[in-house]
Amino acid sequence: MRFSYVIFSLFLISLGLFSSCEKDAKKLNNPTINRGLQHPSLILTKQGVQDIKAQLGHIPIFDKTLAVTKKEVDAEILAGIDVPIPKDYSGGYTHERHKKNHLMMQKAGVLFQLLGDEKYAVYVRDMLLEYAKMYPTLPLHPQTRSYARGKLFWQCLNDANWLVYTSQAYDCIYDWLSKDDRDFLEKDLFKPFADFISIGNPQFFNRIHNHSTWGNAAVGMIALVMDDDRLLNRALYGIKDDHLKEGMKDNDGGLIKVKGEKAGFLANIEEPFSPDGYYTEGPYYQRYAMYPFLIFAEALQNVKPNLEIFKYKDSVLIKAVSTLLNLSNKNGDFFTLNDAQKGMSYYSKSVVSSVDIAYKFGGEDPKLLDIANKQQVVTLDDAGLAVAKGIEEGKTKPFIKKSVNLSDGPEGKQGGVGILRSNDLELVFKYTAQGLSHGHYDKLSFSLFNNSNEVLQDYGLVRFVNIEQKGGGNYLKENKTWAKQTIAHNTLVQNESSQFKGKYEIGSKHHSDLFFFDAKNSSIKIVSAKEDNAYSGTQLHRTMAIINDDEFEKPFVIDVLQVQSKTKNQYDLPFYYFGQIMETNFDYKVNSELKPLGEKDGYQYLWKIGEGKPTSNNVKFSWLNQGVFYTLTTVATKNDNLIFAKIGANDPHFNLRNDPAFILRRKDTQNTIFVSVIEPHGSYSPVSELALNSKSIISNLEVLTNTPEFVSIKIKTVNGKSKLLMLANDVVSKTSKHKLKLNDKVYQWIGSYYYTNIN
Amino acid sequence: MRFSYVIFSLFLISLGLFSSCEKDAKKLNNPTINRGLQHPSLILTKQGVQDIKAQLGHIPIFDKTLAVTKKEVDAEILAGIDVPIPKDYSGGYTHERHKKNHLMMQKAGVLFQLLGDEKYAVYVRDMLLEYAKMYPTLPLHPQTRSYARGKLFWQCLNDANWLVYTSQAYDCIYDWLSKDDRDFLEKDLFKPFADFISIGNPQFFNRIHNHSTWGNAAVGMIALVMDDDRLLNRALYGIKDDHLKEGMKDNDGGLIKVKGEKAGFLANIEEPFSPDGYYTEGPYYQRYAMYPFLIFAEALQNVKPNLEIFKYKDSVLIKAVSTLLNLSNKNGDFFTLNDAQKGMSYYSKSVVSSVDIAYKFGGEDPKLLDIANKQQVVTLDDAGLAVAKGIEEGKTKPFIKKSVNLSDGPEGKQGGVGILRSNDLELVFKYTAQGLSHGHYDKLSFSLFNNSNEVLQDYGLVRFVNIEQKGGGNYLKENKTWAKQTIAHNTLVQNESSQFKGKYEIGSKHHSDLFFFDAKNSSIKIVSAKEDNAYSGTQLHRTMAIINDDEFEKPFVIDVLQVQSKTKNQYDLPFYYFGQIMETNFDYKVNSELKPLGEKDGYQYLWKIGEGKPTSNNVKFSWLNQGVFYTLTTVATKNDNLIFAKIGANDPHFNLRNDPAFILRRKDTQNTIFVSVIEPHGSYSPVSELALNSKSIISNLEVLTNTPEFVSIKIKTVNGKSKLLMLANDVVSKTSKHKLKLNDKVYQWIGSYYYTNIN
Repeated sequence: MRFSYVIFSLFLISLGLFSSCEKDAKKLNNPTINRGLQHPSLILTKQGVQDIKAQLGHIPIFDKTLAVTKKEVDAEILAGIDVPIPKDYSGGYTHERHKKNHLMMQKAGVLFQLLGDEKYAVYVRDMLLEYAKMYPTLPLHPQTRSYARGKLFWQCLNDANWLVYTSQAYDCIYDWLSKDDRDFLEKDLFKPFADFISIGNPQFFNRIHNHSTWGNAAVGMIALVMDDDRLLNRALYGIKDDHLKEGMKDNDGGLIKVKGEKAGFLANIEEPFSPDGYYTEGPYYQRYAMYPFLIFAEALQNVKPNLEIFKYKDSVLIKAVSTLLNLSNKNGDFFTLNDAQKGMSYYSKSVVSSVDIAYKFGGEDPKLLDIANKQQVVTLDDAGLAVAKGIEEGKTKPFIKKSVNLSDGPEGKQGGVGILRSNDLELVFKYTAQGLSHGHYDKLSFSLFNNSNEVLQDYGLVRFVNIEQKGGGNYLKENKTWAKQTIAHNTLVQNESSQFKGKYEIGSKHHSDLFFFDAKNSSIKIVSAKEDNAYSGTQLHRTMAIINDDEFEKPFVIDVLQVQSKTKNQYDLPFYYFGQIMETNFDYKVNSELKPLGEKDGYQYLWKIGEGKPTSNNVKFSWLNQGVFYTLTTVATKNDNLIFAKIGANDPHFNLRNDPAFILRRKDTQNTIFVSVIEPHGSYSPVSELALNSKSIISNLEVLTNTPEFVSIKIKTVNGKSKLLMLANDVVSKTSKHKLKLNDKVYQWIGSYYYTNIN
Repeated sequence: MRFSYVIFSLFLISLGLFSSCEKDAKKLNNPTINRGLQHPSLILTKQGVQDIKAQLGHIPIFDKTLAVTKKEVDAEILAGIDVPIPKDYSGGYTHERHKKNHLMMQKAGVLFQLLGDEKYAVYVRDMLLEYAKMYPTLPLHPQTRSYARGKLFWQCLNDANWLVYTSQAYDCIYDWLSKDDRDFLEKDLFKPFADFISIGNPQFFNRIHNHSTWGNAAVGMIALVMDDDRLLNRALYGIKDDHLKEGMKDNDGGLIKVKGEKAGFLANIEEPFSPDGYYTEGPYYQRYAMYPFLIFAEALQNVKPNLEIFKYKDSVLIKAVSTLLNLSNKNGDFFTLNDAQKGMSYYSKSVVSSVDIAYKFGGEDPKLLDIANKQQVVTLDDAGLAVAKGIEEGKTKPFIKKSVNLSDGPEGKQGGVGILRSNDLELVFKYTAQGLSHGHYDKLSFSLFNNSNEVLQDYGLVRFVNIEQKGGGNYLKENKTWAKQTIAHNTLVQNESSQFKGKYEIGSKHHSDLFFFDAKNSSIKIVSAKEDNAYSGTQLHRTMAIINDDEFEKPFVIDVLQVQSKTKNQYDLPFYYFGQIMETNFDYKVNSELKPLGEKDGYQYLWKIGEGKPTSNNVKFSWLNQGVFYTLTTVATKNDNLIFAKIGANDPHFNLRNDPAFILRRKDTQNTIFVSVIEPHGSYSPVSELALNSKSIISNLEVLTNTPEFVSIKIKTVNGKSKLLMLANDVVSKTSKHKLKLNDKVYQWIGSYYYTNIN
């Protein structure tokens, strides 16, 4: 049990609150921790509303958001209320309508508070009454795909979304409503709704999962409005006896019941967040989950301030916001780790509210104002006011993303993610735990960005979120059979089989281990990790660095992958580049007919375009993308196969993007080392038609040492200069002294690596 | 002979100037038309320099350009002069160095004039002396690919580029140089240089071709500086007796000698420009050619103002600038007609100078200031000053691109280009002449842009301009075998053979004919043209319209292609869409192994991905690109083949982009009609994950009438509404009355088309 958890538990015990039994819920009503009921009190407070009203017209970003929101809601009010009988998957009309309804109710509630115009309250009330009339007789949603079907939506998750937003709307008009209306709404709508998504669906509610976080927040927030501590207790601590069987799985293949696992909101903070604020599913889902985490936390802070929820687990919720922002490229697009839709960014609504809440409740970090300023929108509540005022008062400081190592696992001991940054180059190196049901089998994989353009991509998910004609907007079959497979990533595949046999049960038992991370040196940022379980009997050790060397026009990447195995294997190392091939230094032949590269584990989705063999000890492969040239230089052995591939085979419904890959294949090999440099260079503009530095300046890349103790690599440039990178394979200590003799010269250094110019 | 040419000729005759014989050149010295020699006088004038100096510091866009230029040239001066022995193709060092040298000399010359710092004059002089020392003994460039090899560069074209810029530099330091230096430079460098690219290479100099325009301008400009009217005469009127054989071709396959064709600068204005200012090679080459046209014209205007060159051919050079700007999409990227590199835009240097010169010498059209303001750079000369002052004085008016029909051919009688615009949609319809050696075989083809994104693309050229590793930066083989072929375009291919058999000799004899164009109606913009020669015995008639109908969220395109043939044929109609396929309404099968779609005429480059058959009388094909949904709805016959294809087969050097196509194939058919609607609808954002209007609203598309007299088409929407489009096939007159009976109702209208809502 972690220290902060202990402290918090002691605190709860001291308040007589430590229990997950619903019968203890009444203790929450202890007046010392509950400042008494007033409305609104979740995201808007009475005081906050007064403050906002006093400031209106003087806080541009807030005023702007308010104007946009008013216009949007006014148009919806004009269009009239529609509460259709649920029928469609996401992307379909009834799904999108109910979703829009809860978003509009939340906004209308806020507008009622801020502008005082009763039409907004009327709109919320009338819509709620429609729902209340429909709900008691509503059957399960007719679409059957989900492991936890909702009533308004095809999955409970969306029902929970609805309640999180609607609770806020209810809070805003609570005092304005008649007691009769309140009673009717609570009896026929809110209480049965909260029960349905919790005790009615424990397989949804009682997990460690982003779904459950939404469920917990939904139940908790309506509980706060209704002042129902029994429900609140359920939200915070889960259902004690959920009668779930161990081994149950959801429709993404994720385990529902894990032995000994706690449930409820607090457990959902405890488990998936590492102490560094990394959420184990990856940034795409962290972005999604942050909203219920923070909105419920905000409401708890306002209604039950003595809980000090923002200090829970060393203030991990606040920390997680900065961590999430760091998990995006220069443009703010989140790195695609595990299941992730490309293009999702910190401009998303849930990150806007996360940033605003973290600013207000996390000590007003002025760097967050920089992001809020980019977002150009704030939440229309106390937190948004704080941000808007902060910006207006000129408090903004730049949010500079640095190289950072983020641990994974509840205690930060289950691997992690290393992010290296140098100038415009950003490298994301994955050595995490499985990442729950959204995890991919791609230990020691990486992706690379240059000025926010993808240089070597991570494919992301196979899903067209909310686009109905693509499988109801849900995960497509190819997400499992392609996107999660190892070959879909920039990492090693052994014998054309995915890591951990592509099995969640195996993958979720393991994680990679950090060997070292160092980003303090301005000329070299480096991360190194090991993976011993992906392939039984094989040890993988990958070290990646971005080197900023004056002789090179731009920083470049060096990639050292050591493989030790008990058996001979075939190793495939793909590079998912984007762009047009410019040049290679080896002979190859393209195929006049195309066949899939393999039959299973994702290989069936790759067309084999052509193949080559090295003609020297280095393979060079150059391409042009978005106006920048890139060259991959890799140390080759003469039997290597050099494969040109393209995604798209066996794709009967055109669900995949047809992106290219260059694959190094080494057959019949036991122990080996892959050493590559990825070198961005020069530029091309179709307007000036100038091609600058279109060629690599590396004339030779060589492995000088490859022993159990050391790896040393020599990079020679066309200018006749040479550079050495030395890596120590021994147990790492920052003060370890190393000595290596190369060509009669003895090199000595302290630490796990050493980079130097020679000549 | 056109009227303006007659007038101009009479004017020249009245001055005793009408002759292409060099012996008459001295007449150019007639003091009534030559204001006498002073320097600088080409693009800067003595008065202009004074005016600029007086304004410096008060004309932001000029000041900014000057600062950037000074920084650039200062850095080059610091780096030192290098005049290497010529060796490389474009992209290679010596090519790029010599190119940079002439650019830098031109800039340094200007800086000397504007800033008065002698270091710039010294830099130009010293570099020129290096060239003068090298030139007399310089052999032909060692690279042999060109039909007209240069000395500094692999082709005379680049030598001419060099001289156009260097003339300006020489002009700027002329007075400052010693007479000895001038004599040396003229004797050893400029005169032999001008002779080499003209009488030494008549196959380059004496054509109607953008190459020759550069040659003419180069010779003419150095003639103006040197006050050499014999050379000037050669530049204006060409070489009288060039001893060239008819039928000679250049390395692009273009004819060099055409019987009866004139040569020289004036003929190069006369021939390739239509009266509308459309340059027959297309906008990519127009952009390139505009620089020598306008820079030499400017110099002529300054030195020989009585020639009134800007009034030549009804002021076509001025008109051509606005026309060129209209040939770009919303972002300013030029439409890709014929050989054209994508991404080339009105931000290119040559368009900057064109806009500035057209502003100063074409009546100071305030709309040009809008473009100059976007370019954010001006030429550092009298023209640039005028533009900078105009902007600073707030004279700018918006340059609004409208739907426009541009004729092709010297007299505007060889087809043309129709551009339809409505909201964000831009459709480019090609029914031109061949377009000289850069022409593609794609009569009646089109491309479509939405908010500057390509919806249905024109492939453009196969060349990586100036990228040495891609075939020396020159045209690649696939330009001829793929890009020029008909199947590479969105137009009809008969029997898997290119139009005009893909032969320049045939294609250059023909052009399509406009049937009608009407852009005056706000709800429908429409163009219609016929092509009778592309396939012997087959008549093609295509009508394309953008319709702005309130029931549709966005404007949509309707495409009606009538085919009449003496024989049964196979017809292929490709749609080169971009993006991800969302949905189809027909059954299809993707191939488990890929083979090329055909064997020749470009088909060998297409992978056949899959094939389907219609399951109803409409084929629907939907895709998502850049956040917008698109649906192609087309009237199908049950035997149609629906082919999914992708570019990239038989591409051993990865010279092609792997873009997709959807092809309608109709076999064993004599007369037929292809009717399609291309409907942009809705939006998708990966940030909000909202999919709006993701489905087509067309429930049925039907051909009601298809007779020699009429075509009528009915569009039915999911709302149960119907629309009719009627087209008259008879001889077009704007006042023709038409009557058509459909389902017992008689429709009457005046003109060639009629669009109406029914119900």
